[in-house]
Amino acid sequence: MRYFMTFSYDGSKYNGYQKQPSVKTVQGEIEKVLRKINSNKAITISASGRTDAGVHALNQKAHFDLNKDMDTNTLQNSINKLLPNDIYVKSIEKVSDDFHARYNVKAKEYIYKINMGEYNPIEKDYVYQYNKKLDVADMERAMKYLEGTHDFKSFTKAEEKYEDTVRTIIQTNLIRNMKDPYHITLSFFGTGFLRYMVRNIVGVLIEIGEGKRKSEDIIDIMDAKDRTVSGRTANPEGLYLKDVFY
Amino acid sequence: MRYFMTFSYDGSKYNGYQKQPSVKTVQGEIEKVLRKINSNKAITISASGRTDAGVHALNQKAHFDLNKDMDTNTLQNSINKLLPNDIYVKSIEKVSDDFHARYNVKAKEYIYKINMGEYNPIEKDYVYQYNKKLDVADMERAMKYLEGTHDFKSFTKAEEKYEDTVRTIIQTNLIRNMKDPYHITLSFFGTGFLRYMVRNIVGVLIEIGEGKRKSEDIIDIMDAKDRTVSGRTANPEGLYLKDVFY
Repeated sequence: MRYFMTFSYDGSKYNGYQKQPSVKTVQGEIEKVLRKINSNKAITISASGRTDAGVHALNQKAHFDLNKDMDTNTLQNSINKLLPNDIYVKSIEKVSDDFHARYNVKAKEYIYKINMGEYNPIEKDYVYQYNKKLDVADMERAMKYLEGTHDFKSFTKAEEKYEDTVRTIIQTNLIRNMKDPYHITLSFFGTGFLRYMVRNIVGVLIEIGEGKRKSEDIIDIMDAKDRTVSGRTANPEGLYLKDVFY
Repeated sequence: MRYFMTFSYDGSKYNGYQKQPSVKTVQGEIEKVLRKINSNKAITISASGRTDAGVHALNQKAHFDLNKDMDTNTLQNSINKLLPNDIYVKSIEKVSDDFHARYNVKAKEYIYKINMGEYNPIEKDYVYQYNKKLDVADMERAMKYLEGTHDFKSFTKAEEKYEDTVRTIIQTNLIRNMKDPYHITLSFFGTGFLRYMVRNIVGVLIEIGEGKRKSEDIIDIMDAKDRTVSGRTANPEGLYLKDVFY
């Protein structure tokens, strides 16, 4: 029986989503709990993709197989009771055996939060504390150049070996709340993302907001297909996997 | 030379504001830093009041004396460099020697944040996770009965010895954001607050929101001047000292 779950986590205390020996990871914590529920037999979960250390998820998705047919509400409650309080299963449903939480992904949305106001200790793990004003209109203009199908090679880790670095960003948005002009949220909705792609894009967008680069420079950066021409990788704490679509 | 500072902190990792032997407190951390700046001579800071374990501050205020006349920006930067990143000094100014950060308080504002939506691990230390709907209109009505000068004995810790438990709440507000109907913020602006007063008031407001008590019941609870007739103490993580006025 295949189960498909939606879960959220605070990534600040984890060495990323993906299981690794001898460090605390989100996958590791969930599999430890599932093992207990499964009469101490190991279970591997397959998520929509990994998130890096310090990155959060509002709606991460994963599937796993259990030999027993369980009521999904009971299963959800049992898992949540055993999980640490910084990981939470929001829902579980039964799916057919050929459904795969990674291979079947149609699109994902990431958001990146920036505080341009004063340093706020309460948000230190949840927002990138830039703490200075950025030219938001220039950043928004640059984001629009990213929409469409492009080779995003300049925005992935140079060492990553991808056969194909072409991806499609369907829509970008820069969200502001007029009651709080110091916080902005950048959203990226696309059919696929390369490793570090959003944080490397945000690194360039911040340089554009600082006036160090022009909005149009982002086109040249894409065209170069070279990681060394883009900017730094923006901090992980501002990044959230917001949703995954199938 | 007397200095007056405004600072914010994430209370989630502290045993409250007030210094205590052998546990981590906000005052203890700040005084440790000031001692380093003051050639290893101890300095005591006097804050506007204490906050309990897990409670946050957006604008806490305190004064302290230094034997040297320092530039306030330099002093602020030196302190922030040495403080842990969950405490932040927002500003420092010089004040006259007869100014006292506690005795001269004219009013304070506290806010209390509640999540009536789904449990969110990202906010677990920063919002009270009630995770069910509350009747917000009834709560707002009850808050209005608190405005004015009343004896708030029913809302303080029974063991606290106060000579006088009469306080004035100038204004209350229940703040909602139409884009996010699941989060509410209760604000209390008053000339003085008893220990646990806001959290004990919120405990009763939640029971009113649950329909277990009527809005008007809050008048009877005040009239009783008896802690046992009010409700439970609401969780600390939702509470913020928002501002102090002189």
